Amino acid sequence: MVSRLDASFAALSDPTRRGVLEQLGRSDASITDLAEKFHMTLTGMKKHVGVLEQAGLVITQKVGRVRTCKLGRLTLEEEAAWIERHRRMWAERFDELDLVVEELKQKEKADGRKRKE
Amino acid sequence: MVSRLDASFAALSDPTRRGVLEQLGRSDASITDLAEKFHMTLTGMKKHVGVLEQAGLVITQKVGRVRTCKLGRLTLEEEAAWIERHRRMWAERFDELDLVVEELKQKEKADGRKRKE
Repeated sequence: MVSRLDASFAALSDPTRRGVLEQLGRSDASITDLAEKFHMTLTGMKKHVGVLEQAGLVITQKVGRVRTCKLGRLTLEEEAAWIERHRRMWAERFDELDLVVEELKQKEKADGRKRKE
Repeated sequence: MVSRLDASFAALSDPTRRGVLEQLGRSDASITDLAEKFHMTLTGMKKHVGVLEQAGLVITQKVGRVRTCKLGRLTLEEEAAWIERHRRMWAERFDELDLVVEELKQKEKADGRKRKE
């Protein structure tokens, strides 16, 4: 089973797909518009939009012969929370490391002083 | 050229790799430890760690016969910023949509009133 986070992070790992999301943040667009804008074949753009749609980041609607793309319901909240948790953990680990380095420095100083006495 | 964001989002798109990052947030670990913890072959775990290392999320160090993994320098700041920007854009677009819907409702009410008069 592919989880929500798997699909969304994979969808975000491509510069064209990130560009499409930025574009749709400004205004809805047809697949043809997007293909032109990103200098891509219709088939190529359809694939990218398919990946974004699967991840819930984009929804598409066909009216007549035109398929319009707009931002989907996925607000990337869970993704933001995961990254934030990781960043906090990272900071804590490196704070710990700083402490260890600081203690080593203090010890070195103390040892130096003892040697001088 | 694979950009920084491409590599980091791709690295985050796998549950085992996200699990490894969470584990290394708690304490450093050898590839063998990680393979056991995630019920994986050494070869499989080496591949995952390789992807994380390429993305800058993990660094490894070989001491004697043991390769130890720890969190790398990448703090996912750029990734958090990208997601935050997208969320803001998303909220703005849907605020606009709310306005349009509200205007349509007001218009309908006004039209209803006119019909009654």
